[in-house]
Amino acid sequence: MDTLMIKVDEGTMPVHTDNGKIILIDQRKLPDAIEYFDATDIDQMCFAIVDMVVRGAPSIGVAAALSMAAHLQKLAGQQDSALTVRQFDEAKSKLDATRPTAVNLRWATSKVHMFACFLLNEKVDNSEFGKRIFEFAEHMLQDHLDRNRKLSDFGLSVVPQSARIITHCNAGSLAACGWGTALGVIRSAHAKGLKPSVFVDETRPRNQGSKLTMWELTQDGVPATLICDNMSGYLMQKGDVDMVITGADRIAANGDSANKIGTYPLAVLANHHAIPFYIAAPLSTFDPLIESGEEIPIEFRNKEEVLSLDGRTLTVNGAEALNPAFDVTPNQLIKGIITEEGVLRPPYKESIAAALKRNSEKATKI
Amino acid sequence: MDTLMIKVDEGTMPVHTDNGKIILIDQRKLPDAIEYFDATDIDQMCFAIVDMVVRGAPSIGVAAALSMAAHLQKLAGQQDSALTVRQFDEAKSKLDATRPTAVNLRWATSKVHMFACFLLNEKVDNSEFGKRIFEFAEHMLQDHLDRNRKLSDFGLSVVPQSARIITHCNAGSLAACGWGTALGVIRSAHAKGLKPSVFVDETRPRNQGSKLTMWELTQDGVPATLICDNMSGYLMQKGDVDMVITGADRIAANGDSANKIGTYPLAVLANHHAIPFYIAAPLSTFDPLIESGEEIPIEFRNKEEVLSLDGRTLTVNGAEALNPAFDVTPNQLIKGIITEEGVLRPPYKESIAAALKRNSEKATKI
Repeated sequence: MDTLMIKVDEGTMPVHTDNGKIILIDQRKLPDAIEYFDATDIDQMCFAIVDMVVRGAPSIGVAAALSMAAHLQKLAGQQDSALTVRQFDEAKSKLDATRPTAVNLRWATSKVHMFACFLLNEKVDNSEFGKRIFEFAEHMLQDHLDRNRKLSDFGLSVVPQSARIITHCNAGSLAACGWGTALGVIRSAHAKGLKPSVFVDETRPRNQGSKLTMWELTQDGVPATLICDNMSGYLMQKGDVDMVITGADRIAANGDSANKIGTYPLAVLANHHAIPFYIAAPLSTFDPLIESGEEIPIEFRNKEEVLSLDGRTLTVNGAEALNPAFDVTPNQLIKGIITEEGVLRPPYKESIAAALKRNSEKATKI
Repeated sequence: MDTLMIKVDEGTMPVHTDNGKIILIDQRKLPDAIEYFDATDIDQMCFAIVDMVVRGAPSIGVAAALSMAAHLQKLAGQQDSALTVRQFDEAKSKLDATRPTAVNLRWATSKVHMFACFLLNEKVDNSEFGKRIFEFAEHMLQDHLDRNRKLSDFGLSVVPQSARIITHCNAGSLAACGWGTALGVIRSAHAKGLKPSVFVDETRPRNQGSKLTMWELTQDGVPATLICDNMSGYLMQKGDVDMVITGADRIAANGDSANKIGTYPLAVLANHHAIPFYIAAPLSTFDPLIESGEEIPIEFRNKEEVLSLDGRTLTVNGAEALNPAFDVTPNQLIKGIITEEGVLRPPYKESIAAALKRNSEKATKI
């Protein structure tokens, strides 16, 4: 199965379909083991998203879209179409409730939901419905890969030769359904011979940097050095950092960007040292319905993630802990947002609106 | 033995003497177990400092002073006094080489060295030499405790009622030979009924925050919440933090302060949010011989500390990592330095020089 999954050209695919089944690479087990998780069933998929078997805003979106499509296949063909639509709504709500911050999840389930309602109205037969709804979701997977490659190519324009880059969390192929966003830009720079090297924040408490980003970069042969999240200030002060690139989980209409906890401190530090701070994200990460980052809901995860590691308690028994999973970087701290519609620059309200308009004009009609 | 060590009034004593022996609480084992480590022998003490059985700038200083005194006891009484002085030098060099950043170590060994040479010149007999040199070092232990209590009382003036405080690493009784510096101020505020509460940075990679600071605060009943090092930006942005207090390992003549890696990012973030950032440290932490932080040597520790935890690898095999143990916070980011001579304010060059002068005028003559 490994040969199927590990595509050298595109990075590791976190989600794939196999004869109607939805198979996830179990990101909780990396880099120690490559294991797969069958999340075809919607309840299994909800568990997989909550427990971070699959994580990264774009990957979550695509995985949820596929799971929703597989679930809707089973619901179609009932006599009572009002009931069917209600069940569609329920399925969407169930998936949407798994994680609140990343907007790609809702973006993806909305698309599948809309297309399903369209098919219902068309009164296509059951097998046609099942085929087309699943193909629709599968197309989102391929589409993300294309978009990541495109945004990565645009990103090349901001990466200098031999750039020493800090990245946080994992915005690679695992997070973004192939190639990657922040890591996609780095991967493209590496492929282009720009010789980037990367300081990888370990990204407490789930250690996506040490576990996933180090794994992806090592596989690609990109020089990578693991650091603790608290070491970036030292490196910047020493003049050892040329730029910072991270992904995002939700970007407001004004460019304020939610991303993994610890991104905002990096952005403040980068600005303090006049080091450019970039976000790389596909347009599915933008939420034009909210004006600023203040409206982005921040997920608080179980405090056990902070209190223990691999089942081993890190502190005194009965200790309190906080575990916000994301923070919001205000637009003023962001030098540019790298998308498949180019590198967006301030003022973001205008550049984001224009990019979303161009994108929607290009979109294939449903 | 616990009753001997855990002094409720003063916090946990990391170093004590027992009939000429030097006993350390093994800080590597906390909070899981309270174990003791006999570091009377100078080689054992060197190991204990390098491996962080004892850590925290003031505690290292006092422990080294005691070990040096115990070692010099054995060297005194030789016919060849030039040889003896050379051996004194060697002992001092050996201890000084264990860790480069904290200045208290060299400050403490210099004091013992000077006093030993004084006793040699006085030609006191061997038993007199042994008794007085060990008492001299023991006095430094008690003296630190007194100084910590004094600086903590001065610190009260900057702690508002119900202050929500971030601290980093461990600057408690374990680090400072009783009561504590940053935690000493918090402990005094708690005792005074000011109801402080503390967000404790876990302090990667050695986790002194989760292991030691959480343990000390829990013992004292001070409300403490563990956070990852990358969460302080989120809390500050939300308005949930009133002040930051940390210890220091070396403070230059201009106030630039080296402390545990991650302190500098905290200071930058605090300033970005107009939150006061304080250092608390006894005057033995000041190094008036260096003008600025640029001259402070930063210790790089074994990369294994970043790559693994409790023997378990956190990342891909063969990964690279960096492990700077300290960073330097420039004086402009420091609102005040809390010492036993009062809270020093900018311009630090003047206030530090004046405090050191007052202190040396008070010092009991050798």
